[in-house]
Amino acid sequence: MSKQQLPIVNPADDGACCAPLAFEPLSEAEAAELAPLFKAIADPVRLRLLSLIACHEGGEACVCDLTAAFDLTAPTISHHLKVLKQAGLIGSERRGTWVYYWLNPGVLDRLSAILGPRVTA
Amino acid sequence: MSKQQLPIVNPADDGACCAPLAFEPLSEAEAAELAPLFKAIADPVRLRLLSLIACHEGGEACVCDLTAAFDLTAPTISHHLKVLKQAGLIGSERRGTWVYYWLNPGVLDRLSAILGPRVTA
Repeated sequence: MSKQQLPIVNPADDGACCAPLAFEPLSEAEAAELAPLFKAIADPVRLRLLSLIACHEGGEACVCDLTAAFDLTAPTISHHLKVLKQAGLIGSERRGTWVYYWLNPGVLDRLSAILGPRVTA
Repeated sequence: MSKQQLPIVNPADDGACCAPLAFEPLSEAEAAELAPLFKAIADPVRLRLLSLIACHEGGEACVCDLTAAFDLTAPTISHHLKVLKQAGLIGSERRGTWVYYWLNPGVLDRLSAILGPRVTA
């Protein structure tokens, strides 16, 4: 699904330089597209929200579970979830009383691949 | 070198959940430590600077090469390099007229490992 966006580069011969970022200079367009995604996760509450959602049973979490994990108000949590959703990192759906959140597949993998090698050293 | 910081988790049996972030909820302390690193790279110019440094011959680049790649003033580039250096992402050394920059080993790999699996799908 992310094949059209940026290629996953195979490890180079020396095994040390195979992250896309270190393989070829990022273009202005790529950098402009990636920066807002990194900005969305560059917050301690949003990093923990992403992690809580990803770790939740079935890969999705109710806003009620997320809010309970923080010493923050519900509107503050909602604000951070909105930032993550607007960046395309998470999806959501209302079911009855609660809204449920999940990680959009491939987005974190893509950011991961940009930064580092896809092989264990 | 990053072993003491956060473990590199091996792929889970289902192959879909092996990033540290998706394996166990990030602690407040981990999130507080990681957020500034992501914030440092959450800028198009800084992403391109990191990429240019990583791709440069020998893994280090002269500030003269970096400045030449942008339509920005030298003080602006210096500001962005300073942000990257203060976050611990790059190191630098003056040699004669110019300052040379390199990526600090392991930092981007660590961020990569937090976000995604260390295996190709």
